[in-house]
Amino acid sequence: MIDPSTIFTTLESEVRGYSRNWPTVFDTAKGSWIRGEDGREYLDFFAGAGALNYGHNNDVLKRALLSYLADDGITHSLDMHTVAKRDFLTAFEENILRPRGLDYKVQFPGPTGTNAVEAALKLARKATGRESIISFTNAFHGMTLGALSVTGNSMKRAGAGVPLVHATPMPFDNYFDGVAEDFHWFSRVLDDSGSGLNRPAAVIVETIQGEGGVNVARPEWLRALADLCAERDILLIVDDVQMGCGRTGPFFSFEVAGITPDIVTLSKSIGGYGMPMALTLFKPELDIWAPGEHNGTFRGNNPAFVTARVALEQYWNDKQFEGDTLIKGSRVAEKLTTLADDFDGVSTRGRGLVQGLAFEQPDLATKVCSLAFDAGLLAETSGPSDQVVKLLPPLTISEDELDHGLSVLAEATARAFGA
Amino acid sequence: MIDPSTIFTTLESEVRGYSRNWPTVFDTAKGSWIRGEDGREYLDFFAGAGALNYGHNNDVLKRALLSYLADDGITHSLDMHTVAKRDFLTAFEENILRPRGLDYKVQFPGPTGTNAVEAALKLARKATGRESIISFTNAFHGMTLGALSVTGNSMKRAGAGVPLVHATPMPFDNYFDGVAEDFHWFSRVLDDSGSGLNRPAAVIVETIQGEGGVNVARPEWLRALADLCAERDILLIVDDVQMGCGRTGPFFSFEVAGITPDIVTLSKSIGGYGMPMALTLFKPELDIWAPGEHNGTFRGNNPAFVTARVALEQYWNDKQFEGDTLIKGSRVAEKLTTLADDFDGVSTRGRGLVQGLAFEQPDLATKVCSLAFDAGLLAETSGPSDQVVKLLPPLTISEDELDHGLSVLAEATARAFGA
Amino acid sequence: MIDPSTIFTTLESEVRGYSRNWPTVFDTAKGSWIRGEDGREYLDFFAGAGALNYGHNNDVLKRALLSYLADDGITHSLDMHTVAKRDFLTAFEENILRPRGLDYKVQFPGPTGTNAVEAALKLARKATGRESIISFTNAFHGMTLGALSVTGNSMKRAGAGVPLVHATPMPFDNYFDGVAEDFHWFSRVLDDSGSGLNRPAAVIVETIQGEGGVNVARPEWLRALADLCAERDILLIVDDVQMGCGRTGPFFSFEVAGITPDIVTLSKSIGGYGMPMALTLFKPELDIWAPGEHNGTFRGNNPAFVTARVALEQYWNDKQFEGDTLIKGSRVAEKLTTLADDFDGVSTRGRGLVQGLAFEQPDLATKVCSLAFDAGLLAETSGPSDQVVKLLPPLTISEDELDHGLSVLAEATARAFGA
Amino acid sequence: MIDPSTIFTTLESEVRGYSRNWPTVFDTAKGSWIRGEDGREYLDFFAGAGALNYGHNNDVLKRALLSYLADDGITHSLDMHTVAKRDFLTAFEENILRPRGLDYKVQFPGPTGTNAVEAALKLARKATGRESIISFTNAFHGMTLGALSVTGNSMKRAGAGVPLVHATPMPFDNYFDGVAEDFHWFSRVLDDSGSGLNRPAAVIVETIQGEGGVNVARPEWLRALADLCAERDILLIVDDVQMGCGRTGPFFSFEVAGITPDIVTLSKSIGGYGMPMALTLFKPELDIWAPGEHNGTFRGNNPAFVTARVALEQYWNDKQFEGDTLIKGSRVAEKLTTLADDFDGVSTRGRGLVQGLAFEQPDLATKVCSLAFDAGLLAETSGPSDQVVKLLPPLTISEDELDHGLSVLAEATARAFGA
Repeated sequence: MIDPSTIFTTLESEVRGYSRNWPTVFDTAKGSWIRGEDGREYLDFFAGAGALNYGHNNDVLKRALLSYLADDGITHSLDMHTVAKRDFLTAFEENILRPRGLDYKVQFPGPTGTNAVEAALKLARKATGRESIISFTNAFHGMTLGALSVTGNSMKRAGAGVPLVHATPMPFDNYFDGVAEDFHWFSRVLDDSGSGLNRPAAVIVETIQGEGGVNVARPEWLRALADLCAERDILLIVDDVQMGCGRTGPFFSFEVAGITPDIVTLSKSIGGYGMPMALTLFKPELDIWAPGEHNGTFRGNNPAFVTARVALEQYWNDKQFEGDTLIKGSRVAEKLTTLADDFDGVSTRGRGLVQGLAFEQPDLATKVCSLAFDAGLLAETSGPSDQVVKLLPPLTISEDELDHGLSVLAEATARAFGA
Repeated sequence: MIDPSTIFTTLESEVRGYSRNWPTVFDTAKGSWIRGEDGREYLDFFAGAGALNYGHNNDVLKRALLSYLADDGITHSLDMHTVAKRDFLTAFEENILRPRGLDYKVQFPGPTGTNAVEAALKLARKATGRESIISFTNAFHGMTLGALSVTGNSMKRAGAGVPLVHATPMPFDNYFDGVAEDFHWFSRVLDDSGSGLNRPAAVIVETIQGEGGVNVARPEWLRALADLCAERDILLIVDDVQMGCGRTGPFFSFEVAGITPDIVTLSKSIGGYGMPMALTLFKPELDIWAPGEHNGTFRGNNPAFVTARVALEQYWNDKQFEGDTLIKGSRVAEKLTTLADDFDGVSTRGRGLVQGLAFEQPDLATKVCSLAFDAGLLAETSGPSDQVVKLLPPLTISEDELDHGLSVLAEATARAFGA
Repeated sequence: MIDPSTIFTTLESEVRGYSRNWPTVFDTAKGSWIRGEDGREYLDFFAGAGALNYGHNNDVLKRALLSYLADDGITHSLDMHTVAKRDFLTAFEENILRPRGLDYKVQFPGPTGTNAVEAALKLARKATGRESIISFTNAFHGMTLGALSVTGNSMKRAGAGVPLVHATPMPFDNYFDGVAEDFHWFSRVLDDSGSGLNRPAAVIVETIQGEGGVNVARPEWLRALADLCAERDILLIVDDVQMGCGRTGPFFSFEVAGITPDIVTLSKSIGGYGMPMALTLFKPELDIWAPGEHNGTFRGNNPAFVTARVALEQYWNDKQFEGDTLIKGSRVAEKLTTLADDFDGVSTRGRGLVQGLAFEQPDLATKVCSLAFDAGLLAETSGPSDQVVKLLPPLTISEDELDHGLSVLAEATARAFGA
Repeated sequence: MIDPSTIFTTLESEVRGYSRNWPTVFDTAKGSWIRGEDGREYLDFFAGAGALNYGHNNDVLKRALLSYLADDGITHSLDMHTVAKRDFLTAFEENILRPRGLDYKVQFPGPTGTNAVEAALKLARKATGRESIISFTNAFHGMTLGALSVTGNSMKRAGAGVPLVHATPMPFDNYFDGVAEDFHWFSRVLDDSGSGLNRPAAVIVETIQGEGGVNVARPEWLRALADLCAERDILLIVDDVQMGCGRTGPFFSFEVAGITPDIVTLSKSIGGYGMPMALTLFKPELDIWAPGEHNGTFRGNNPAFVTARVALEQYWNDKQFEGDTLIKGSRVAEKLTTLADDFDGVSTRGRGLVQGLAFEQPDLATKVCSLAFDAGLLAETSGPSDQVVKLLPPLTISEDELDHGLSVLAEATARAFGA
C-alpha cells in the first residue's frame, strides 16, 4: 500500500534541503566515505557540516559505544548525574580545559548548537541586565528565535514570522575588502552616547564563518574584538559549534588568537560520533543560573557522552591531532591555490581543514558541487549567494583521500568553466 | 590530579537541577529500573520525563540499534535521504497516520521538543501573516526564545533576559475550578474588535499539562477549543511532546477528543530509546516552507530513526499497547484515589499513565518525592508550586512493578504526613 | 488658481474623519453653539471630544487670553519658568490638589493626551524596572506607539505597522454583563507564578471609557482595582484625559471612588479654551526623572496656562460647578432613560455630563447622529461597533440648551427607528 | 498659604530642564527679546528651539490672532473642516507647495513634532509592510515611543523603560571625519542578503542635526541618500521639524539638495507664533490611511492655523525672506569663524541661521552659555557631550541685534577660556 520509493516526496515537508542537492538514498558510511543504497560511494568533504570531524562511524568510538549500549549503560538522563557524564567531564577538564588554562563552567543546554547559543544569549543578558546583542554580517547561529535574531541570512530570518529584534549586525573582518578600518564603526557607535545603539550585553562571533562563506577572521581582528569588548564591559561569545573540536587545527578555533572568550558554544563534533550533544562554557563568575532555569529533555544523551569522552582521550591527549590537521590543511590550501590560479575569478580561503573555493560567478559554485557529486564527492556551497564551495573533510581523512577529493574537485571546476 | 568525585560541583554549571533532587550517580538501567553506581536500584516512575515510554534500554529496540550501529549504518545525515529515515517515515505512515486518517506532512525540525515547537510557531506565523500566539496558563513548551514566550513558569521566563512578547495566556481548562465558563473570556476578546488583543496566528496547547501540574483538559474542552479556532481561522497547535507516543493511551493524546490539530509536535518518546529526535506534523496546505528555511545539524539522528521505527512496528501495529496503557492507568488511578482518600488535602488527576497526586500543602509533594527516592522510587513534582507528585512510569511497566511503586508512594505519603 | 472649495479633498490626507460625518465648514463658535460659514448653527453635544468643558470661546477665559496676548506675555517657553506657568501651578495647587489632599508632582509632558500617557508609561516602567502594562478592553489612550499599545481599537492598532507588545488587555468592569466576577481572571494570573503573564509595571484605566462606548466603571470596581494594584506593588495610572476636568462632576473622575492613583494624566479641557495642554501627575516618590529625560517643544504653551488658570479660579474654587454638573447630568440621564424606554434595544449609561445612548442595532446610532446633525445637533458615536451615541455637552450649557438638544435627539431617534 | 516663589521646586517634576540653565522667571517677550519679571532683558539666540522663527509675538501675526480670537473664530476643531484650516491649506499650497513643484498630501497628525514623526513612521510601515527604520547617529526625533526609537541620545532612550527596537542607526554625514566613504556600510548591508539587517521601510533623517550638535549634511550626501533609497524602494523621511520653515534659508531645508523626500514632517515654527501645530506631508500614493486611523484631540488648533497662514503670506510669497536669512547666516558664520580662529579647539558649523560653535573641551560650551546668560544672551548647547553652542536666533532679527549677540558671545568665549 505505502510506496517507500515516493515517501520522501509525499510525506516529508518541503523544508528538506540537502536531499535536493544530493538526490540519492544513503545507507552506510565509514571513515571518509558514505554509500548510497545503490552501492555508489561518495568521498565526504562535507562531514555532516562539521559534525563528523572524526569520520563516519569511527571504530575507536564505535567500540566504546557498542559496549556501553550492550551493557545497558544509561541512555537518557536529563541532567541527573551519571557515570558517563562524569567521565566525559573529567576527560574534558583533563584533555581540553586544563592544558589550555581555561577556567570554564560547563552547561549541557540541550543537544544542539542552537540550544547552546540560546543558553549563551540568555546568560549574557541575565548577567549584564542588557538586552541587545551584536552579531556580524553573514553570521549563522541557529534557527530558534533567539539564535535566529543573530543570524544574517535573510531567507532564514524571514522564516521567523515576527520581527527579529534585540540584535544589530556589525561588519565581520575584511567586510570592506581592506578599505575600511576594522572596528571604526563599531567602536565609534559604542563610545558615542548619542549614536542610538543600545548598549550591548554581548558580541557573538564565529572565528570563521562557515555558512557565511568560509570568511576567516584574522587573529589580530579577534584580539582587537576581545580588547574592545573587555574595555567596555561587553561579554564576548565565541560560537565554536562548527569551527571548534579541531576543525581549524587547535581544539578551540580561537586559540590561534590567544583570546579567552567569556562564553563559548560547542556542538556538532563534540559528541564525536555524530550524535546530538552540545555545551555552553562560561567563566565561573557568569554562572548565575538558578537551578533548572534553563532545561531540556535531551541534555543527558549518554551515548554521546561516551563517544565524546573517547574522542577526547583518543585525539586530544597530545598535540599530534592538531598538528596533523594543520598539515592536511596546508596541503588542501596549496592545491586549492593552484587550482584557483588556473581560472579567472576564483580565490581560496580557509584555515586548517575548513577551506573554501570562492567563485566570482555565483552559479559556478553550485555547478561545481553538482558535478562533484556526480563524480562521487560530497561538498556544499556556502555564502549569501552560494558562491563558495566549502570543504569540510573529516579531520581523520588520509592524504590519499584528500588528494583524490581535490582532483575530483579540480575536474569539476574545469568542467564547470568549460560548460 | 582531577578528582572525579567532585567534578560535578566544580565543573558543571549551577543550572543543574534533577541531580540535586536525586543525589546519586546513575550508571545502568533496564526496563523500569535504573541503578546507581553504588548498586542501589530505583524503580523509575519518571521515565526521562516521558522520553522513555518503552522503558530503559528496551531489548527489542536495543537489538535493532546495536545491529544498525555494528553494520555502520549512517549515524548523522542532516536532512539527506537515508534508508533509516525512509523506513521510519514508512512505518510512521503505516502504523500511525494512515490508521488514524491523518493527512500530515512530516518535518524533522531538530531533535528536541523546543525545536519542534519553534518550527511550529514559525510556520503558523508564516502561514497566517500574524505574529501573536495564544498559550495557556501553566503551559510548558521549551526554553528557546520562541518556545519560552509561550511557557508559563515565571522563573524560567525570567531567564530570557529580554521581554517575552507576541504571546498572551488564556485560562486552561478548569482554571477557575468550575466557576467561570470555559472560553468566555477568550472568545469574547477574539470577537470584540476593541478588545486590544492582537489577532492570533495560532493557539498552542497541551492536552494534559505535565510540567504545569498534571492538569487534564477534558475532551469537550478540547473540542470547543478546536471549534473556536476553526471558526475564526486560527491555527491549532497541539504540543504532544510529553503526552504523545501513547502516554495517555492512544498514540496521540488528542485522539480522545476526536479533533485534528493543524500542527502537532512530537519528541521525547518518538525516538523510542531515549535518543534525541523530534517531529513537527502539519496539514499539507501549511507546508509552505522554502527548502532549508528551517534547518539544524541534528535533524538526521539515524540511530533514533531506527529505534523509532522498531517501536512503532512493535507497539503500534495494533490496539493492544493502547489498551494495556489504559488498563494500567486505571489501576494507578484507582490506587491513588484510595491513597488520596486516606489523607486530608490530597487529590488525584490524570489519564492513562500520566497521573498526579496533588497536595494542598505544597511542600508535602516535595517531601513525598524525597522520601520515595530514599525508598527506591523516582518520581518528580510538578505544578507552579511543586505541589503535585507526577507519575510517568514506563508504559511497558509490569503490574507488579506498578503495585510496588504505588506502595512505596503510599508509605512515603504516610510518612510525609506523619512527619 | 487654487480653488479653496476643493482644497480639503485635494490637499488634506484621507485620514480626516469628523469632517466626513459633519460635512460643513465651521467658522465661529460661542458657548454651546458652533456655526458654519453658511450661517447654520449647531448645538454642540460633542464639545471637542471633551476639550471644551467650559464651552466655546468662554468669555471669562477669553478676556484673560486677549489681555495676555495683547500685553506680549510669553507665548512659547518650553520648560523655562514663566509667570504664566507659575500662576497656573499656584492655582492648580490651591484649587485642585490641596483641597483634595492630593500630593502630586506635576509634569508638563507635551501638550496632548498621548504625550501625557507616554510620559506616564515611561515613568511607570522606569520606576518599577518592569516593561509590561495592563490595559482594559475597549480602552483608548492615544495614537503614538506607546499609547497605541494600550489602546483597544483594532483598526487604530493596525495603523502601527509593528506588532504592539508589552501590554495585555484585561476585562473592563461589567465586560461579561455581570456573569463573571470582577477581577477573577486578572488576580488569578497575577498570583499564579505559572500563568505566563509578565509581571506588570502598571495598570492604566479610564474610569469611564469614552471612545470605548461610555462604559462606566463602578466606584467599587475602581476601589477593588486600586486595592489589587496596591497589594501587588503595581502602579495605578488613571487616564483622566477625557473624563477629568469635571466631566463627571468632580474635577477628577476617580474622586467618586475615593482612590488615589499613583499617576494621573490630564489634557483636553485642562487648558480651558481648547488650546493644547497636558499634565502628567504622580506621587512624589515616583519623581525619578533625570532633567530633560522627557522633553518636547510645546510643553510651555503659555496662552493655555493663562486660560487654564482662569478656568480653575473661575470654576473650581468652590463646589458649585461640580454640583451643577451633577444636576445637569441627572437631568440628561432621566430624559435619556425615558427616551430609551420608548424603543426596543436602547439603553442608557453615563455619569455626570458624559452620557450614552446604546443601540443594539449598531447602525442606528450612526443614523441618529446623522439625523441629529441635519437637525442642528452635533453628537458622535462611540464603541467598537459605533453602537453608542455619546453626549458630551459643555459643562456650562444651560438647561434650556440641554432640553433642546435632547429633544432633537429624541426626534432623530424616532426617525431612525421609523426609517 | 501657597508660596509662589517656591512652587516650581515644590510642585514641578524634576524633569524640568531649561529652567535650570536659565534661572529666572520670564514674563514678556517681543521680537528677538525676552524679559524676566525682574526687568532684565535677554537677546534670544534660542528662539524656542526653532519654534519662534518669526520672533516673539510678531505684530503681524499678533494682529490676526487677536482679531480671530476677538471674533470668536473657532478655537478647537479636531479634524473638522473650518475656515481657518481651509485658509491655511490654501496659503500652504499657494506659497509653499506649488512654487516648489511639490505634490504632497497634508496630514494634521497632532500638534507636536513627535506626533508628526509617529504618523510618518506608522505610514511608512503601513505602506511598505516592513517594520524596520534606519535612523542616523545623533538623531533627534521626539520622546514618544516610536519617535524615541529613532532618537540617538542614550539618556533619553533610557527613559523608555522598554527596549527600543525596530530601528538601526547608520553614520550621519562626516561621522568619520572624512575617513570612511559615505554610504559604504549602509549600502553594503542593504545589498548583502546575509547581512542580518532587516530590510527597512524607511530612512528618517534631519538635514542638519540640531540637537545632535549642528551636524550639517552636505547636499551631495543627501542626494546620495535619496538615490540609495529610491534605488532600493525604501522611503525617505526628512524630519524638518527644527530645520524647516526657513531656518536654513529656503522653506524646506532639503531644497538645497534638490531632493524630494517621500515624507516630510513640520512643526515648531509652522504655526508662526509659537503655538502647537504640526504637519506630516507625503506623496499622494502614500495616502493610504483609513479615515480616523491616526487621530488626536488637538489636530485642529485653529489659532495656530491663523498665525500659520499669515506667516506664509507675509514671509513666503516671494524670495526676499529666504535671501535675508542667507545673508544674515553668512554674517554670523563669518563672525563665528573669526571668533573660532582666536582660540584653540574651536570650530564652526551651520547653514543659514542655524550656526554652531564647537569646542573640543566639552565643558567650555556650557560655560560659554552660562556666561552669555549672565550677560543677557540666551543660547543653548547641543551635541552628545553638550560640546556645541547652538545659535538659533529668530529669522526676523536685525543686523544690529545679531552683532550685539555675537559680541556677547565673543566676550563670553574669551572669559570662558580665560577662566
